[in-house]
Amino acid sequence: MSEVTGLLLDLFVIFLAAKVAAEVFERIHQPPVIGELLAGLLIGPHALGLIGTPDQTLVQAFHGDVPSAQEAVAITYRLLAELGVVVLLFFVGLETQIKDILRVGGRATTVAVMGVLLPFALGFVLMGPILGHPQIESMFVGVAMVATSVGITARVLRDLHVISSMESRIILGAAVIDDILAMIILATMSGLARSGAVSLLEIGFIAGQAILFTVFVALVGTGVVSRFALGLNHLRMDNAPFAVALLAMLGLASLAAHIGLAAIIGAFLAGMVFAEAREHFELEHQALPIFQFLVPFFFVLTGSEVDWRMFLDGGIIGIALTVTALALLGKLIGCGLAMVGLGRRSMAIVGVGMSPRGEVGLIVASLGLSLGAIPAEIFSVVVIMSILTTFIAPPILRVLFAGKSTAETVPAEAESEAGRLPDL
Amino acid sequence: MSEVTGLLLDLFVIFLAAKVAAEVFERIHQPPVIGELLAGLLIGPHALGLIGTPDQTLVQAFHGDVPSAQEAVAITYRLLAELGVVVLLFFVGLETQIKDILRVGGRATTVAVMGVLLPFALGFVLMGPILGHPQIESMFVGVAMVATSVGITARVLRDLHVISSMESRIILGAAVIDDILAMIILATMSGLARSGAVSLLEIGFIAGQAILFTVFVALVGTGVVSRFALGLNHLRMDNAPFAVALLAMLGLASLAAHIGLAAIIGAFLAGMVFAEAREHFELEHQALPIFQFLVPFFFVLTGSEVDWRMFLDGGIIGIALTVTALALLGKLIGCGLAMVGLGRRSMAIVGVGMSPRGEVGLIVASLGLSLGAIPAEIFSVVVIMSILTTFIAPPILRVLFAGKSTAETVPAEAESEAGRLPDL
Repeated sequence: MSEVTGLLLDLFVIFLAAKVAAEVFERIHQPPVIGELLAGLLIGPHALGLIGTPDQTLVQAFHGDVPSAQEAVAITYRLLAELGVVVLLFFVGLETQIKDILRVGGRATTVAVMGVLLPFALGFVLMGPILGHPQIESMFVGVAMVATSVGITARVLRDLHVISSMESRIILGAAVIDDILAMIILATMSGLARSGAVSLLEIGFIAGQAILFTVFVALVGTGVVSRFALGLNHLRMDNAPFAVALLAMLGLASLAAHIGLAAIIGAFLAGMVFAEAREHFELEHQALPIFQFLVPFFFVLTGSEVDWRMFLDGGIIGIALTVTALALLGKLIGCGLAMVGLGRRSMAIVGVGMSPRGEVGLIVASLGLSLGAIPAEIFSVVVIMSILTTFIAPPILRVLFAGKSTAETVPAEAESEAGRLPDL
Repeated sequence: MSEVTGLLLDLFVIFLAAKVAAEVFERIHQPPVIGELLAGLLIGPHALGLIGTPDQTLVQAFHGDVPSAQEAVAITYRLLAELGVVVLLFFVGLETQIKDILRVGGRATTVAVMGVLLPFALGFVLMGPILGHPQIESMFVGVAMVATSVGITARVLRDLHVISSMESRIILGAAVIDDILAMIILATMSGLARSGAVSLLEIGFIAGQAILFTVFVALVGTGVVSRFALGLNHLRMDNAPFAVALLAMLGLASLAAHIGLAAIIGAFLAGMVFAEAREHFELEHQALPIFQFLVPFFFVLTGSEVDWRMFLDGGIIGIALTVTALALLGKLIGCGLAMVGLGRRSMAIVGVGMSPRGEVGLIVASLGLSLGAIPAEIFSVVVIMSILTTFIAPPILRVLFAGKSTAETVPAEAESEAGRLPDL
């Protein structure tokens, strides 16, 4: 059996698991995305072993130190998962117009900054002053608690058809800013861990590049698309507008990844840029089947990385649960406070929506591990925190939004700041 | 830069090359698929080297004997290409109802059998009796000339919007039968090359399995779908009919590959089974964006495997061109004769449509090489034949179909055999 034939069977098993889980979770009124994550855990190398091999974890694949025989499969899985989440954020971007993000820009910035400061402070204080771990170790845990994995939340918002709500827009805007902040902090931390010193010039360059990329794409890109979109009809290739939008998705995703941002930020911006032209070319309608085909791979493969035995380790589970509680509280209070005046439900939605650490927490932890900045048990603590925040957020979001439609009217300040959004 | 970030950039480069090439080729009135193949050749490891590495050929990837550092990328490319051609044949299947294939079943069988016998005979006689190569070597060249890569032709038929023409249906039906025949011959050849003997029991088992699979899926699958398709509306998951159709595509493709058939045969059957329900659920409409996103990867990556320097080898180019000419003549005359009575244009369309050897020719050649049945220079001869037949067929098909709309009316026999097809 060739490798490719084996991988094709893996794709079938993953997609089947995703669809069965989605069906079951819809029937028990739980978010299908949790079903997909759990399906991944079940069929993954740490449980039934239907896909992957135990050594082939996300962390190893990111760093390339996988035994060569399994490397091919691990890398292929990662690309598939990455493509899935890139398509997800592209689709969410298509449903998000730049003017709606700019309208909530101030609020989103506050949410991002508060959602970075408070979790970092809580994690740092717990690990350092209270538990007495070394400073660099405490800082890494703090940074891992800062990360936001917007993929999970974006999927829930899309499944609930509330992408155009004020809260969703604030979350998406904040996620972009959050990713830039996290990148700056991570670059600083890596410098500290490597050489004990930080080059302000280097950090400034990295930050400037990321901000410039985001602002340039969002503003200039949108202008270019709204001005020249109709010109795409003059191209002879089959369905040129959709092809060009997909090109922008792949191009901006890899450009974002190359300058150190998350690829999904580039994909989201690409979607947003084409949101101006989406109705004219039915872009959303066309992106939806690709979403339905590829996105489940991200969630099932992410779930398959979870090693449930970690939760049986009595030595770390206590501190892991404490860190998880602080990670949730940090975002809930930090982002919630930033939402003051928009009603308690909106405060809760944004706080919970910013909570999942997902694969971003894992990346920070694995960086810390590979730099020798954190020991193995602290790595496990961060992994457990990432998993739990990821699994807890979707059901709570679902309840919060379910209550919203029948609940309080939006207070006056939101009206003025968030404007006349269609579904408020 | 992580492997995944690098691969994401590769996807962008491949998709960009495909779209630029498609645009240029549409403008010069040539088939876009040739543009995509040439774009792959241009950006591939043997020319500009924008993607892949020189050692990572299709043949090596199929056999897994690639240096480990490049294995990951090679396997990922192969999976992407395979997914692209699987989606292509699934889409073509969706446009093909089983009753239309059965209506031309007798003719398709004759086309397949004649298209196997004549090319094999020509190749065998040239290599053995005329050029004096050993018997097993001549037989392998003969078998490589038998193969049909229906992906190329299917793409051209789809681009020309003629999938539902009588000729297209005969080609598709013949391609399925052709693949079963090729598998049986290949199993026989492998037995001969390995042990000098053929186990009739084993060959019978392999053949029976393939025929049973095809007939069972085509007949029972179609019955199940037409009876229970409406039940899919009772599922709670998002867009269940499309999800189940994609599941069938992945499942039947990997099942086909596991029993030794081409994965694309399974994908084609899956599409055909759901063709019954396609209008009800808009399956074609939904599959199209996935087609537009993934199919170009197959053609660009296939093109990137071509080492143009092979054509500069004076020692083999003469015999390679002779073999190519016989490969074209074999299908043109063999399949053409099987079409007698349906008009000269239809004879030519089916003969040319069955001509591309594509990746199937390469697989046969690489099997012969790995079994020690053919030497390196004969391997190159087969590779050149596969490339040339693949590149020559699309432009000729385009011309033949362009003439058809303004040309002769269909003769009486075709009416009665092919029935009242919509676009005859």
